Amino acid sequence: MEEREISKAVVKRLPLYYRYLGDLLEQKVERISSNELSHQMKVTASQIRQDLNNFGGFGQQGYGYNVKYLYNEIGKILGLDKTYNMIIIGAGNLGQALANYVKFEKRGFRIIGIFDVNPRLSGVAVRGIPILMTDTLPQFLEENSIHIAALTLPKNGAEEVAPVLVEHGVKAIWNFAHTDLNLPDHIVVESVHLSESLMQLSYNLNCANKNEEE
Amino acid sequence: MEEREISKAVVKRLPLYYRYLGDLLEQKVERISSNELSHQMKVTASQIRQDLNNFGGFGQQGYGYNVKYLYNEIGKILGLDKTYNMIIIGAGNLGQALANYVKFEKRGFRIIGIFDVNPRLSGVAVRGIPILMTDTLPQFLEENSIHIAALTLPKNGAEEVAPVLVEHGVKAIWNFAHTDLNLPDHIVVESVHLSESLMQLSYNLNCANKNEEE
Repeated sequence: MEEREISKAVVKRLPLYYRYLGDLLEQKVERISSNELSHQMKVTASQIRQDLNNFGGFGQQGYGYNVKYLYNEIGKILGLDKTYNMIIIGAGNLGQALANYVKFEKRGFRIIGIFDVNPRLSGVAVRGIPILMTDTLPQFLEENSIHIAALTLPKNGAEEVAPVLVEHGVKAIWNFAHTDLNLPDHIVVESVHLSESLMQLSYNLNCANKNEEE
Repeated sequence: MEEREISKAVVKRLPLYYRYLGDLLEQKVERISSNELSHQMKVTASQIRQDLNNFGGFGQQGYGYNVKYLYNEIGKILGLDKTYNMIIIGAGNLGQALANYVKFEKRGFRIIGIFDVNPRLSGVAVRGIPILMTDTLPQFLEENSIHIAALTLPKNGAEEVAPVLVEHGVKAIWNFAHTDLNLPDHIVVESVHLSESLMQLSYNLNCANKNEEE
């Protein structure tokens, strides 16, 4: 089970490799050297070789990488050869944006329900996916095997609903709420904090301006 | 100009400090020790002291931190004491979600225009912000000083519009498109790649499952 020792930085780069290889596939590129991939991705060639060696290599010395093979193998490492049932809690703009994103579906993330507390949204569907009322969530979780829940609702609601999800067997949470959820260690939480991303941008913008003024 | 030497990891934690301190302020907490903050944030106390020492400290030995003062100081470091004019390119669900997020406005990020190529959206407004047609963007940029552009449109559109933004003086791009933009070094690019975040989640979910099965 070598994967357990993989560093977070490598895990962060894997989707990036997957994206670049997918672009190359679209351009009908069959083989690529680590140097060429390095040039495109702006990551050093030795970094690429080192990253991929974590999973057994994939390259033949002097022949480069077979794009399709590497793309598929990285997909498997990322778990994209499986299908996941996903629900979205919070049917605001962001929740609806995720529900409308067909690419997730193609990658195996099947969104099968959207939940909200707003009775006016009851019966409405987004891309054919029904918006259900949050009070029916426990029953829904009993009747359906849900792997991933995306939380696109305000902080307080997210903190309330997360333990309910865990209690009913949800193992992974994609958290967009402005809070770090306090959940058992075996629950996978991946957070997207938009405000924090914007603050990093303004920090960097201010540094850049300072440098220019000198 | 000590800020220039600050590591990316510290810059990533600053918005986190800002969020926790903001929560403490809401709870009317006036002082906090680095130990207590450490406990809440799940970051070691020495890490906190080290991070804040990058900016000159802020703590008095034995007295802890003054929450409001530290909150304001970190806000200044993050550039949140200034106002930024921001536009959003792409008025789909995600673009509209950002436009509706009033918290950004409160932090000084004023969204003054949303752009889209879809003529059906012409004249529509989101939270009072007009959706304008993308072909009017160059003129808009001439007439308004825009600091930040959020790109919430597909890859090809993003790659096309980014150089136009740069050419007209936009210094920072908040990129949600599924691509790394190829822009001059002095342009600040902060990317939010949702698909990649979801792939990291599925990677971790698969690792967690494997560990459980053993």
